[in-house]
Amino acid sequence: MGSAMLKLYNRERSGNCYKVRLMLSLLGLEYEKVPVDRQGKGRNNPPPDFGKLSPLRQVPVLIADGRPYWGTIAILVYLARKHGGTGWLPNDAEGEAEVTQWLSFGQNEIFYGLGRARSMRAKRWHGYGTLEEAHAIAAHALGVLEGRVAEHDWLALERPTIADVACYSYTVFAPEGGISLKSYPAVRAWLERIQALPRYLPTPPYDGAGGPLVE
Amino acid sequence: MGSAMLKLYNRERSGNCYKVRLMLSLLGLEYEKVPVDRQGKGRNNPPPDFGKLSPLRQVPVLIADGRPYWGTIAILVYLARKHGGTGWLPNDAEGEAEVTQWLSFGQNEIFYGLGRARSMRAKRWHGYGTLEEAHAIAAHALGVLEGRVAEHDWLALERPTIADVACYSYTVFAPEGGISLKSYPAVRAWLERIQALPRYLPTPPYDGAGGPLVE
Repeated sequence: MGSAMLKLYNRERSGNCYKVRLMLSLLGLEYEKVPVDRQGKGRNNPPPDFGKLSPLRQVPVLIADGRPYWGTIAILVYLARKHGGTGWLPNDAEGEAEVTQWLSFGQNEIFYGLGRARSMRAKRWHGYGTLEEAHAIAAHALGVLEGRVAEHDWLALERPTIADVACYSYTVFAPEGGISLKSYPAVRAWLERIQALPRYLPTPPYDGAGGPLVE
Repeated sequence: MGSAMLKLYNRERSGNCYKVRLMLSLLGLEYEKVPVDRQGKGRNNPPPDFGKLSPLRQVPVLIADGRPYWGTIAILVYLARKHGGTGWLPNDAEGEAEVTQWLSFGQNEIFYGLGRARSMRAKRWHGYGTLEEAHAIAAHALGVLEGRVAEHDWLALERPTIADVACYSYTVFAPEGGISLKSYPAVRAWLERIQALPRYLPTPPYDGAGGPLVE
C-alpha cells in the first residue's frame, strides 16, 4: 500500500494535527491534506458526514487505505506500526509500555496544561476550565518533563519514539500559551534535539492570536 | 517469567487501579497488592520513594520483573502484550490503532466526565473543575459510547480487548457519580457482556461516600 493513499483531515494550528503532520514528515510519508474549520464555525466544514469518520467530530482524522482513524495517539500508533518498523514504537511489552506511559502524559498533563493554555489565551477554547488552572497543570507537567529529560536524551528507550512526538507539540507552543520555558533548560535542550531530527517539520508560524509570546 | 513476580501499588476504590486488577483477573495472573493511601493523606503511604516508581506519584504502579510501570494505559498494554497473546491487544497497525482510539476515549471523555464526577461527589477530588462540568462531559461521553455499542458488541475488533477494560471502569461507577444509565440501554448491555466474561472481577462495593446511588 503506497503512502499516497493517506489523507489527513487537518487544521493547521491544531497542536494534535501538528503531531500527526510531524510524524508523517519524520517517516517521509506523502499525504493529502483536507482542511477542516473549527467545530461549529460552519462554512460546510467539517463536512456533514464528518461524524461517520470520527464519533467525537474532532480533527485529526487519518484516512488510510480507505479506512478512518481518529484520536491523535491512535493515529501515531498506526503510522509508527505501519510505516516505522519498531524504531518509533517497539513491539515488546516492556518497550511499548515505556513509550505508552509518555503518550498518556502528553494527552493528560501536557494537553490539559499547555495545550489548553494556548487555546484559551487565543480565545479558541470551547471546553471547560480557566487559564489559571491550565497554567498550574502546565507547571506540574513541565516539572515532571524537566526531571525526565535532564537524565535522558529522549522520553523512552534512549531513542526518539512517538512519545517524543506526542509530547513535543504543546510543549514547544508554551510561549503562545503565556508559559515561559526559561526555568526548564533540559526541556529546551530536548526540544532542540527533536528539531534536529532528519525530516523534522517546523511548527506553524505564530498568528499572534494570544498576544505577545512569553519567552 | 512467572506472574508471581507481579506487584501492584493499589488503592481499592481507585477506578484506574480497578482497571488493572480487572485485567490481571481476566488474564488469570497472580500478583501481590501493596496498599497506597490517597496522595497527601500521609500515614507513611505512599512510601517516601514512591516518586522513583512514578514521576506523577499516582497509583496504579505495576512492578514486573523488578521494573516499575506507571500510567494505567501503559500497564494494560504491558499486561496484554506480555501475557495476553494478541487477543486483548493486536499487533497489526490497523487493529492496534482501533483499540487505541478507545483507550484515549477512556482516558479523556470517560475519565474527565464520569471518573471525576464519582470522585467529586465523594469529596475525594483534589484537582480542578466542577461537578456540573464533569456531568456535561459524562453526558457527551455516554452518547458517543451508546452510539458505538448499539452497533457493535465490543468497542473494537468485534471482540473484548483492553479498550473495553479501559472504558468499563468509570462507566460502571456512573451511579456513584450521580449519573443515571437509564437512557443508555446499549451501554448497560455492554456492561453486562463484560460482567459475563470468564474470570471477571466484580467492582468494589460502594462505600456510600457520594450519597445515594442514582439508578
